[in-house]
Amino acid sequence: MEDLEGGVDYLADERKKAQFDLNAMKILWAGNQHQFQIADRMARLVASDPEFKKDDRVRLERKELFKNTLRKANRAWKRIIELKLTEEEASQLRFFVDEPAYTDLHWGMFVPAIKGQGTEEQQRKWLPLAYRMQIIGCYAQTELGHGSNVQGLETTATFDPETDEFVIHSPTLTSSKWWPGGLGKISTHAVVYARLMTDGKEHGVHGFIVQLRSLEDHLPLPGITVGDIGMKFGNGAYNTMDNGVLRFDNVRIPRDQMLMRVLQVTKEGNVVKSDVPRQLIYGTMVYVRQTIVYDASRALSKAVCIATRYSAVRRQFGSQNGRETQVIDYKTQQSRLFPLLATAYAFRIVGDWLKWLYTDVTERLRANDFSTLPEAHACTAGLKSLTTSVTADAIEECRKLCGGHGYLCSSGLPELFAVYVPACTYEGDNVVLLLQVARILMKTVSQLGSGKPPVGTMEYMGRAEHLLQSHCSAQKAEDWLNPDVVLEAFEARSVRMSVACAKNLSQFSNPEEGFLELSADLVGASVAHCQLIVVSKFIEKLKQDIPGEGVKKQLQALCGIYALSIMGKHLGDFLSTGCIKPKHASLANDLLRSLFSKVRPNAIALVDAFNYTDHFLGSVLGRYDGNVYPKLYEEAWKDPFNESAVPEGFHEYVRPILKRQVRSSRL
Amino acid sequence: MEDLEGGVDYLADERKKAQFDLNAMKILWAGNQHQFQIADRMARLVASDPEFKKDDRVRLERKELFKNTLRKANRAWKRIIELKLTEEEASQLRFFVDEPAYTDLHWGMFVPAIKGQGTEEQQRKWLPLAYRMQIIGCYAQTELGHGSNVQGLETTATFDPETDEFVIHSPTLTSSKWWPGGLGKISTHAVVYARLMTDGKEHGVHGFIVQLRSLEDHLPLPGITVGDIGMKFGNGAYNTMDNGVLRFDNVRIPRDQMLMRVLQVTKEGNVVKSDVPRQLIYGTMVYVRQTIVYDASRALSKAVCIATRYSAVRRQFGSQNGRETQVIDYKTQQSRLFPLLATAYAFRIVGDWLKWLYTDVTERLRANDFSTLPEAHACTAGLKSLTTSVTADAIEECRKLCGGHGYLCSSGLPELFAVYVPACTYEGDNVVLLLQVARILMKTVSQLGSGKPPVGTMEYMGRAEHLLQSHCSAQKAEDWLNPDVVLEAFEARSVRMSVACAKNLSQFSNPEEGFLELSADLVGASVAHCQLIVVSKFIEKLKQDIPGEGVKKQLQALCGIYALSIMGKHLGDFLSTGCIKPKHASLANDLLRSLFSKVRPNAIALVDAFNYTDHFLGSVLGRYDGNVYPKLYEEAWKDPFNESAVPEGFHEYVRPILKRQVRSSRL
Repeated sequence: MEDLEGGVDYLADERKKAQFDLNAMKILWAGNQHQFQIADRMARLVASDPEFKKDDRVRLERKELFKNTLRKANRAWKRIIELKLTEEEASQLRFFVDEPAYTDLHWGMFVPAIKGQGTEEQQRKWLPLAYRMQIIGCYAQTELGHGSNVQGLETTATFDPETDEFVIHSPTLTSSKWWPGGLGKISTHAVVYARLMTDGKEHGVHGFIVQLRSLEDHLPLPGITVGDIGMKFGNGAYNTMDNGVLRFDNVRIPRDQMLMRVLQVTKEGNVVKSDVPRQLIYGTMVYVRQTIVYDASRALSKAVCIATRYSAVRRQFGSQNGRETQVIDYKTQQSRLFPLLATAYAFRIVGDWLKWLYTDVTERLRANDFSTLPEAHACTAGLKSLTTSVTADAIEECRKLCGGHGYLCSSGLPELFAVYVPACTYEGDNVVLLLQVARILMKTVSQLGSGKPPVGTMEYMGRAEHLLQSHCSAQKAEDWLNPDVVLEAFEARSVRMSVACAKNLSQFSNPEEGFLELSADLVGASVAHCQLIVVSKFIEKLKQDIPGEGVKKQLQALCGIYALSIMGKHLGDFLSTGCIKPKHASLANDLLRSLFSKVRPNAIALVDAFNYTDHFLGSVLGRYDGNVYPKLYEEAWKDPFNESAVPEGFHEYVRPILKRQVRSSRL
Repeated sequence: MEDLEGGVDYLADERKKAQFDLNAMKILWAGNQHQFQIADRMARLVASDPEFKKDDRVRLERKELFKNTLRKANRAWKRIIELKLTEEEASQLRFFVDEPAYTDLHWGMFVPAIKGQGTEEQQRKWLPLAYRMQIIGCYAQTELGHGSNVQGLETTATFDPETDEFVIHSPTLTSSKWWPGGLGKISTHAVVYARLMTDGKEHGVHGFIVQLRSLEDHLPLPGITVGDIGMKFGNGAYNTMDNGVLRFDNVRIPRDQMLMRVLQVTKEGNVVKSDVPRQLIYGTMVYVRQTIVYDASRALSKAVCIATRYSAVRRQFGSQNGRETQVIDYKTQQSRLFPLLATAYAFRIVGDWLKWLYTDVTERLRANDFSTLPEAHACTAGLKSLTTSVTADAIEECRKLCGGHGYLCSSGLPELFAVYVPACTYEGDNVVLLLQVARILMKTVSQLGSGKPPVGTMEYMGRAEHLLQSHCSAQKAEDWLNPDVVLEAFEARSVRMSVACAKNLSQFSNPEEGFLELSADLVGASVAHCQLIVVSKFIEKLKQDIPGEGVKKQLQALCGIYALSIMGKHLGDFLSTGCIKPKHASLANDLLRSLFSKVRPNAIALVDAFNYTDHFLGSVLGRYDGNVYPKLYEEAWKDPFNESAVPEGFHEYVRPILKRQVRSSRL
């Protein structure tokens, strides 16, 4: 997005080099014209509103920081109402405010939980309150002792037929709810997950709406101990959020505050399953995780945008028309940066596809068709794991690609990293998720030839017989431009790794023991499968009609870079399974270098296509106009630490040393 | 180190499993009995002194944080003097205070620069002042526009024979000194690197002692603009340091403040080389970089200690004697954690060896023997790059291995990461250093058969003919326990990658162009060479007599894990160069799993051997006694943010929303 304060564009020469229609690429990145316009309008709205200024965030002490976030959330809510924004617009506005806040959990978890798990009556009662923010809710699942193992949660919800109430209780220290965002200081209500107990019997973990704080004085209600869990990674970052701790001392709630869409407890204490399929829960997980994949492409593209622009500004060593060389022209820089640029595009494309997948699954569920659900669930779980792990590492890599200056908060990258990394843990630890994918892969392998052909993203496994025998046909570097050659190599690698795992597993008499023993290899097979999904969705996209001059050509180059750089990084997989031979790897490496050269002149335009404002990037290094050094210099002097030349503590602690008032008998 | 406040050791069962002499391992880790005793005493001294408390550090606003650091530095100096500590003890004490401070640069860079580059007369004048801290110095090299390219520095030092002075000047914005620690607020003096100019001619970059601030009122002297460059990555972390910005407006210093050991400027303005060899500078670089390698093993071992202990405390899923399984028993956890544990030991061993190498190089230089210097310089540059990159990534991996709770500052890992990562950039950007190594590798390859046999860590290249032909002899998994099999695979991989690069380079008519084009592959060859050095030093160590029951056995297992996990991670290298075949890789993988099982019962004792106090670890998750959850819970409530139930800003910004004073016309 063009933010040229002074009017001088130091990257103008770079922008002139682009060989494609930038506007068409912007629309492709946004999804479509409609989404582009919304995002563009909301981004500008936020960027032009001084209330949303964020460059002082990293310096604020926690209480100040949090107050500041409350102010922004209030401002955002006001604007949403004043401008009568649609739900989609409101969500984009909150996104561009770019600051984790209690409202994220209210809209992103509390409301969806009631929608997904509440009966129609419950929805009628609670949703209007939530929509108007007359109550503010959070999602209290994770406990101090239990994260990934939801079935191991210890909080209890015991039905008392005498009073027609549930008693919510934290029996142990480790059963304290721990981590929920919005819980620490703000939420008035929570959906609390607890083991349902009736008549001394247990019925698994379910959700309950519990009021936490008085709507009058905002103090915790009797029996409730609640607070913030303390400082988290980084300056600013997630410290704007009140992740909380919560304990219940026999707190009573009316029976109708158990979310009963799937399971009901009657007045008499009978537990009755409704005819609503329990699998709906997986539908919700598919929804949440596809948004995480989409967000991965946004976080990654932000980091890549900063690193790419700064790599064009920074010069070091060498000589180019009498000046030092732009670091973006070094092959070492390109070989680290361009694969990440390609990955940002790849994740955006697979994110778009997952949106479609969620719609498809939802429609099928409505029609009582559960056939694609396990595969869709595994696929989103795997892609959540892959994209968040890669993005977290990539942000840090982008920071390193900015050299020393990437270590300054004014680069924007430290905060982006710190705020992003929890994505690797929340909504399913990434390793645990890959093991879930591995289970489905092993099941699929075991059913090959059973007449039940694999579906969806596992369809290629139906061609296992061929893929176990296939040979790479690349004869020269350019052959790796052929999507069929690339796809077959990735499919063969994935099938062969899965089949090898299955074979090794079969040598254990106890399959569970085998699964544990070989889990590291199984994780490897899952990663291979997930990378294949991304590659294949990218290739599918390229088979579509793509508007805009030169746009498809750029995407083809990026697709090649994405696939071949993965091949280089996981070369051991490809070679050890015999999918390719060393000579093919060498050809792929040659092609990769030539693709870097193709992308080079387009690099700046390819990150301009993300259409991010300077406000959103929050980075001096990533400024649209490339005017980095004067601004970096200015930024330093703005720091309140520079208000006085002699720092606090100098007279007390340094002067006595200099003046030898601290004396050594030796010296 | 045993810190059992309450007396209960929740990890006692784990400690009983150890199969080796813990005390012997502690001494091995420390280097020897003498070093162990110093480190142990200094660590306890710091841990028991409430003035060095650091758990509030992550919450302090910058000015407070900095003042706090000044207080600690003062306290440390007092203790050093009161207790009449030796230089070695003082350095250990500062290390265990564990907080970056201006004193680090004074002792670590300013004093050594004068020692290394000053004449005897200059040393006599300046060193006593510095030793007594009557002046405080920093090292002003890096500029806003130039980091890695030292020869590109823009600051000028122009000799004025009229006044017998140098005029120090910053001609451009980008020539501002930028980053030097201790510069921003505290240093009274700096060694400033500038281009020497006499009579309109340039004579390269040299060091000059420049006074920056008045010794009376600590204000910057005329012509000097100096300040702090602002917030850096992380809470606490390096924000305790005043990394600074500095500009000179024609500042005059006496001629004798140029450091003239190597090059002199006479009164008349003549430039005269002394008979002190310029290569001495490389000796200094070897010194600084070997300390960085040593520090890498300390930072990594700290992270590994935290992650290992917490992995034994944390239970999730599964079942073990009626309780959930300790996460350290999962192979996925082991396959990520144990290679890092092994790496900590590997880096310690190679760090010890580098200390020896530095002594050896110094002695040779004194005897005018420069023959080993290029190789020693390349070797330390490469190991600096390898160990710091690996350590930075490993700290973050350890954080992820602690699941969600690793994201809390109270885990200690976020701050450790943020404070460590600059090591990848300072004292040579890691990629730039690897390219330096690559240059020497290419030179060595080109000289093979010339009758000039490669020396030191490149000696194996002399056996290139054999290594290019050799075949892996492993027939069964246990064969990978044979150090000769491992070493030959690593040597063969390194030689073959270097030779392949050299061959590809030879196809370019312009060698520099070829070097740029193939730089990514050259970096790969350098990494292979550096990993080989670590593996071979580990194996050499195992050939020595190692005291203590069972100690050698543990080190053997760790050496195997280190080497084979690298082989797994870089399998593409080994397979594509034909050093091993897929079946060998599969055997290595089997052996690796069995080594994990061997290390498992010893894991806690292996991190206890680091002998770190709870103070030094600064981590609730890594507590010696394993009493994690109650302390995590307590820690949360200590946060000042929990002083009031209703947070600042609630009444102003949230209550109006809840009370619908912010209204929508739509809802």
